[in-house]
Amino acid sequence: MGIPGKDPALSAIHVSIGFDRRLWREDLEGSRAHARMLAECGVLEPSELEAILRGLAEIEQELEAGTFPFREEYEDIHLNIERRLIERIGPVGGKLHTGRSRNDQVATDLRLWVRRRAAELDQRLLQLGTALLAQARAALARGDVLPLYTHLQRAQPVLLAHHLLAHLEALERDRGRLRDAAARAAECPLGAGAGAGSGFPIDPARTAELLGFARPCRNSLDAVAARDFALELLAALSILMVHLSRLAEELILWSSQEFGFVVLSERVTTGSSIMPQKRNPDGAELVRAKCGRVFGALQALLVALKGLPLAYNKDLQEDKPALFDAVETAELALAVMAATVREARFCSERMRAAVEARDGYANATELADYLAARGMPFRQAHAVVRELVERARAEGKRLEELGVERLQQLLGPRVGQDVLEALSVEAALARRAAPMGTAPERVREALAEAERRWGVG
Amino acid sequence: MGIPGKDPALSAIHVSIGFDRRLWREDLEGSRAHARMLAECGVLEPSELEAILRGLAEIEQELEAGTFPFREEYEDIHLNIERRLIERIGPVGGKLHTGRSRNDQVATDLRLWVRRRAAELDQRLLQLGTALLAQARAALARGDVLPLYTHLQRAQPVLLAHHLLAHLEALERDRGRLRDAAARAAECPLGAGAGAGSGFPIDPARTAELLGFARPCRNSLDAVAARDFALELLAALSILMVHLSRLAEELILWSSQEFGFVVLSERVTTGSSIMPQKRNPDGAELVRAKCGRVFGALQALLVALKGLPLAYNKDLQEDKPALFDAVETAELALAVMAATVREARFCSERMRAAVEARDGYANATELADYLAARGMPFRQAHAVVRELVERARAEGKRLEELGVERLQQLLGPRVGQDVLEALSVEAALARRAAPMGTAPERVREALAEAERRWGVG
Amino acid sequence: MGIPGKDPALSAIHVSIGFDRRLWREDLEGSRAHARMLAECGVLEPSELEAILRGLAEIEQELEAGTFPFREEYEDIHLNIERRLIERIGPVGGKLHTGRSRNDQVATDLRLWVRRRAAELDQRLLQLGTALLAQARAALARGDVLPLYTHLQRAQPVLLAHHLLAHLEALERDRGRLRDAAARAAECPLGAGAGAGSGFPIDPARTAELLGFARPCRNSLDAVAARDFALELLAALSILMVHLSRLAEELILWSSQEFGFVVLSERVTTGSSIMPQKRNPDGAELVRAKCGRVFGALQALLVALKGLPLAYNKDLQEDKPALFDAVETAELALAVMAATVREARFCSERMRAAVEARDGYANATELADYLAARGMPFRQAHAVVRELVERARAEGKRLEELGVERLQQLLGPRVGQDVLEALSVEAALARRAAPMGTAPERVREALAEAERRWGVG
Amino acid sequence: MGIPGKDPALSAIHVSIGFDRRLWREDLEGSRAHARMLAECGVLEPSELEAILRGLAEIEQELEAGTFPFREEYEDIHLNIERRLIERIGPVGGKLHTGRSRNDQVATDLRLWVRRRAAELDQRLLQLGTALLAQARAALARGDVLPLYTHLQRAQPVLLAHHLLAHLEALERDRGRLRDAAARAAECPLGAGAGAGSGFPIDPARTAELLGFARPCRNSLDAVAARDFALELLAALSILMVHLSRLAEELILWSSQEFGFVVLSERVTTGSSIMPQKRNPDGAELVRAKCGRVFGALQALLVALKGLPLAYNKDLQEDKPALFDAVETAELALAVMAATVREARFCSERMRAAVEARDGYANATELADYLAARGMPFRQAHAVVRELVERARAEGKRLEELGVERLQQLLGPRVGQDVLEALSVEAALARRAAPMGTAPERVREALAEAERRWGVG
Repeated sequence: MGIPGKDPALSAIHVSIGFDRRLWREDLEGSRAHARMLAECGVLEPSELEAILRGLAEIEQELEAGTFPFREEYEDIHLNIERRLIERIGPVGGKLHTGRSRNDQVATDLRLWVRRRAAELDQRLLQLGTALLAQARAALARGDVLPLYTHLQRAQPVLLAHHLLAHLEALERDRGRLRDAAARAAECPLGAGAGAGSGFPIDPARTAELLGFARPCRNSLDAVAARDFALELLAALSILMVHLSRLAEELILWSSQEFGFVVLSERVTTGSSIMPQKRNPDGAELVRAKCGRVFGALQALLVALKGLPLAYNKDLQEDKPALFDAVETAELALAVMAATVREARFCSERMRAAVEARDGYANATELADYLAARGMPFRQAHAVVRELVERARAEGKRLEELGVERLQQLLGPRVGQDVLEALSVEAALARRAAPMGTAPERVREALAEAERRWGVG
Repeated sequence: MGIPGKDPALSAIHVSIGFDRRLWREDLEGSRAHARMLAECGVLEPSELEAILRGLAEIEQELEAGTFPFREEYEDIHLNIERRLIERIGPVGGKLHTGRSRNDQVATDLRLWVRRRAAELDQRLLQLGTALLAQARAALARGDVLPLYTHLQRAQPVLLAHHLLAHLEALERDRGRLRDAAARAAECPLGAGAGAGSGFPIDPARTAELLGFARPCRNSLDAVAARDFALELLAALSILMVHLSRLAEELILWSSQEFGFVVLSERVTTGSSIMPQKRNPDGAELVRAKCGRVFGALQALLVALKGLPLAYNKDLQEDKPALFDAVETAELALAVMAATVREARFCSERMRAAVEARDGYANATELADYLAARGMPFRQAHAVVRELVERARAEGKRLEELGVERLQQLLGPRVGQDVLEALSVEAALARRAAPMGTAPERVREALAEAERRWGVG
Repeated sequence: MGIPGKDPALSAIHVSIGFDRRLWREDLEGSRAHARMLAECGVLEPSELEAILRGLAEIEQELEAGTFPFREEYEDIHLNIERRLIERIGPVGGKLHTGRSRNDQVATDLRLWVRRRAAELDQRLLQLGTALLAQARAALARGDVLPLYTHLQRAQPVLLAHHLLAHLEALERDRGRLRDAAARAAECPLGAGAGAGSGFPIDPARTAELLGFARPCRNSLDAVAARDFALELLAALSILMVHLSRLAEELILWSSQEFGFVVLSERVTTGSSIMPQKRNPDGAELVRAKCGRVFGALQALLVALKGLPLAYNKDLQEDKPALFDAVETAELALAVMAATVREARFCSERMRAAVEARDGYANATELADYLAARGMPFRQAHAVVRELVERARAEGKRLEELGVERLQQLLGPRVGQDVLEALSVEAALARRAAPMGTAPERVREALAEAERRWGVG
Repeated sequence: MGIPGKDPALSAIHVSIGFDRRLWREDLEGSRAHARMLAECGVLEPSELEAILRGLAEIEQELEAGTFPFREEYEDIHLNIERRLIERIGPVGGKLHTGRSRNDQVATDLRLWVRRRAAELDQRLLQLGTALLAQARAALARGDVLPLYTHLQRAQPVLLAHHLLAHLEALERDRGRLRDAAARAAECPLGAGAGAGSGFPIDPARTAELLGFARPCRNSLDAVAARDFALELLAALSILMVHLSRLAEELILWSSQEFGFVVLSERVTTGSSIMPQKRNPDGAELVRAKCGRVFGALQALLVALKGLPLAYNKDLQEDKPALFDAVETAELALAVMAATVREARFCSERMRAAVEARDGYANATELADYLAARGMPFRQAHAVVRELVERARAEGKRLEELGVERLQQLLGPRVGQDVLEALSVEAALARRAAPMGTAPERVREALAEAERRWGVG
């Protein structure tokens, strides 16, 4: 156990095979590409290449089968695989490392991993987006309406579909950030060696091509020292988690008895041991909580990198725990939210009741807009309606219950017979017909467009 | 002082004019565009538009001249300007706010600000890049060489120009991140109203166009609730600060008496009150320290946004202090680093002495590569050279001082007469001729390319 | 403007008078103590001491009156005051700095500041605690009861007073943390000089005593290099902000129309421009948001200190912006919460209605406990009650509406005639009579004890 | 795998047995105490208690032996143990949970764990402190002297022992913080039930006593909702990591070829595969890097707790990963630093050479102090010496090489024959004889005192 000749504490802090084994696929992929390139450049004989590829294939089988003998004394996944290769194919296995150093090797593996996981995260985002779109379409069909909240106070009516599409917009930008991060990580460090570049006649452009990178890095020191590609992914994930936490918070609020807007599926909640009606939104709560974990991983790596001189420092090894944990957390959070949204059951009546509540005056804005549209300066319209609501409230009445005449008397001749109609929920919705608004026709268009962009429906 | 009728503590926490006055240009710009659009849509009369534009122009003069009467009871810059407008042009000023709410107004102003400052940051990055390029060109001309450090231990010789270009690469990706952040912020929220959209026949696409946005937002709730554009900028700045801190750390180390690789200008250092030779690298130290400040601002906004239900919550007001402080800090840090790099004087002799130090064996890798290039498996070559260095060290000799015969005797017939030449610093550099390596010809090309990309030279 | 001979960027990043002027009281206090000690040790003549004290008194008047000429070229508050002293009393003013360096001076000033502000924060905590205690006493008198929430789902009835005292407990620990932080900061750095100690026959114990410190620092390098006292305060404030944010969140939730448990005063809320019934809980929202700011300040200083070699580095200057901002934010947040709690009006009926809601089954636990107290293993009791609630729910009945016979029939002979009484809210409360529980007698005792500990009532 | 009937994603995010199994000892301990108290209160029959204790003892053996059947469908360690108990001893096992809920159970277990680990961390701190003390004693015996650095520039001579004791001071405060955190965590939550308190006639004071707590919590909601005890430990660990990172940074710098002040043991460094003289300070680098990880854990939990309403929310489950990771990281970091310090070999000559370097003028301060002690105002003394050093430097001479006459001529009659002696390293050290200074006699006392306080030697 541990590295021979080393203090146990040093072994424990230094050995990374416990977590970097996650990179075995990338390490094999990188080694194959490196070997092929070496052969093409004449650094390896064809027979040497063949032996190496055969050995790597056998090792891949061991890793797939779970029979690979991980050994702590070889510290990390890279050396574990290289030593295993030499065990299997003899000293020629030692030629694989020609023109390569662990410094550029590990940077390459990690970039490959980042690019692969970014693509997987995109798939998870697509699943959540799909669930939101399906709920939005259903909500639109049902005509579900709920209050727009500002300061968690009811303000104006909006369509539930419109509300759900707001979350979709945020996720769409998250996808863009992941895409940008993956694109910027698409430079291949192989060929940088320990940091000064390689002394062998290698062809980094070829390795980059074989591995699906856009191009090799341009500078060998930068190639081994840079970890901004990891930071950028962590930042994108932190922002994504903010978005998931906001959605989670709403589902927690909405599934409380006080709101009652949604019933979450038993599949994503846990029951109380005693109260059968209780559905604890554990999934949403944990997604909300795990924000902290991803923010913490971002901070952890920012801190680790702060003030490091070039080129390689062992501190860089801390990139992996942060990155692995954050990516796995975000993937899980996306899966939980996708399941939660997919199976949520919305309560149309409770939402509408909240919109129409006697003490809500959710149509006060409508009345002010009505006056403004008839020429009263906006600020003045607001002021007179405010007084009116005060009065209605004192009388325990809705605005529309004051009647047209009373309204005319109180607000002046700008008020017409059409005022009562203007105060209905449906009128309020329909009026928000400018682009990006909640009018049913706008939302219908927005939904169709979103489905097109997301490749759904 | 404070808002009438409010608890002083509420006033103190709520009033934002102390910091959001920074947005006055953006607020005026946004209001002008909104007014023009309203007029084009027939919501404002031409004469009303004219009055409003005139009023805004007068207010602009007051703000430019420092005579604008900021008033805490109007809370923020938006209301301060609107009230001032009404004071100046009468009730018609109240029409400016038609079809607009403070929620979409503030989101618009902040996006305009973000886009403007991202462009300014890019200019600062360009200045620092230019300074690095100039130093790299000069270093290349002088042939400056220094050790590549791994684990802060000397490893192999590299050109100083190559080392400097590594920092440039990182900055170039920083520019990319800023560009992406600005592009994603290029959606205009105006027209979202309080969050449900506008009930007036407005044209958000027109306002977006007038303000230089790529397009309007697609969803009104998202338009007022989203702050990921701010988070993305803060993340990009945090990563940038990491890069600046690494450069700063090197300048601090290199200007220590122990390294002695660089003398920083008196213009960016402070002297001791007593030791004239002492040049405290305060600028670089503060840049390094201010990493924390920018990371903290990022964390602050992530935390503020975590778990917020849609649409607008007052918590969003905390976006501004974080953003303002981080942007101003990063701009200052860039300016300090640009000045520091620009005026740094490198000490060629000290750097070369570090490369050639008797106890450094910076050419041990060369010898191993020499053997590997002549057919010895890489891992074996490393092992035999390791033993050789152990022996040379015991004898207090450099590798080349062992002589060809001794080397042949110890390492076998693969060693030829050319081995001594292969051990020189110049040979070591020249060998790293694969792409991204430190060979002078590679660095010359890389430098020229970089100058082209950065529009320098 | 700026420091002569320096690059403007260096000046801008280096000059700290803009923020460290907050330390002027502490700087004067420290200088007086230092001068007195020097005189007592014979380093200053009595007449020199007199001149210095007179000069400092004049400077104090200028600072109090706002007429002190702050000058950027003197960088910080320490040098500004020293130069002003020399201007006023001549070269003898230069003797004040004997046996002192800016390094130990600034550390001393900041510790004085920390200790003073910790005491002020304690006062603010006392005000908030007092407000909570007053509300708790009133709530107990009214017999206010509300649901205990777990997972934001209603679980069991608790007294509002009991709930409020839970927040008080957290604040009491916060006071303990502030006290510990202040106590650990009670070592005086004066005498450490630049970091090696003083070469003059000074008496650090005397200065410490004059300044109210418990003792001088024990090691000169540590005295100038340590900032854990600042970190500890920032950590205590971060934890405090967590507590305030939890209280703020509840007030936001409870003042929503959906909960309706509390009406916040107009003095700590803002109205909508149009809906008079709307009370936006801006104060509570901003307290919640400003959590991030204080966490960010903690992170900022942790980052700034990470990896700094001893003794003094300019990075340490970044301690002040972080500390100043966090302390001011926490003080403001405490004041806002105190005002908010003090003037909150609780809605007894809405809370009780939530406890007694037909679909709440908040007494299901009582029934299970009833069975367990009569010998049924706890886990089994939970299981049978769960089934029972399912059945009652299907029938649209409360548990007590099933009647004694039906309950006996379904749950077996353990059920007695007293079961209905056991299911009442009052019985549920009364049963929680073990220490720390919500039984009215327990809460009465707990409240009285708390008032004693807090010196209230 | 997973929880039956639940979505796999929910299972994956919800099941905590993968990490909370670390709490098995605490869970058994808590259960035993709870059972004993129940029996004493007459809630359990003696035979029931006996059965439960026997069952728990058997489970303990299984856990010790690694044969305990962990099952994901039972979610966490608490339910795993309870279900296992029922399997082993029948339905009576279900009585263990009487008067207890998972909410107070988990809070109790975690506090027990925190208190135990805080004590273990203290032991680790003691080991590191012991290593520092041993090195300080040896350094004092050798008379090792090195430069005090400010801004990483050489300033004045200090004893190495004095420098090492500075680190000890910081660690001593860290021990104090751990002690305070453990003391504040010494309230026992058992008896709080789900959050409203227990309906059984239990005796929380007795359970608290059996478990070694100082007392029970005072409020049931607070007992289950509070996690500030965890935050406080995380904060103390973050500050500790700052201190370790500063020590680590110095060892990294000092073991560079440029400084050469220390040679780290091969047992805590790794070699290069090729350069035998290279000792990469991996241990110290990783300690420095892992700062970020602990800061990240602190932030993670701060974020998770922000804005949570009382009482229990599932978010609280995220306390454990953060806490476990941070404590394990800090323990490891302490062990690595203890081993690193213990086996470090300091290079007296290299350190002294740095002090005496011709271009260092480390005795310039001495000369200024010499003049000040002879009546010249301090600021003036500094100014004239500054000029003198400028001149000496131009002539390439040390100050003492100017000779007494020249010094008198340049500095005036205050200069006596004793001036040269005053300029020696030994005189400089001896002069810093005020308390906390680096004079050998002071350091000898400080060391002896420290050994006494730390119980060492």
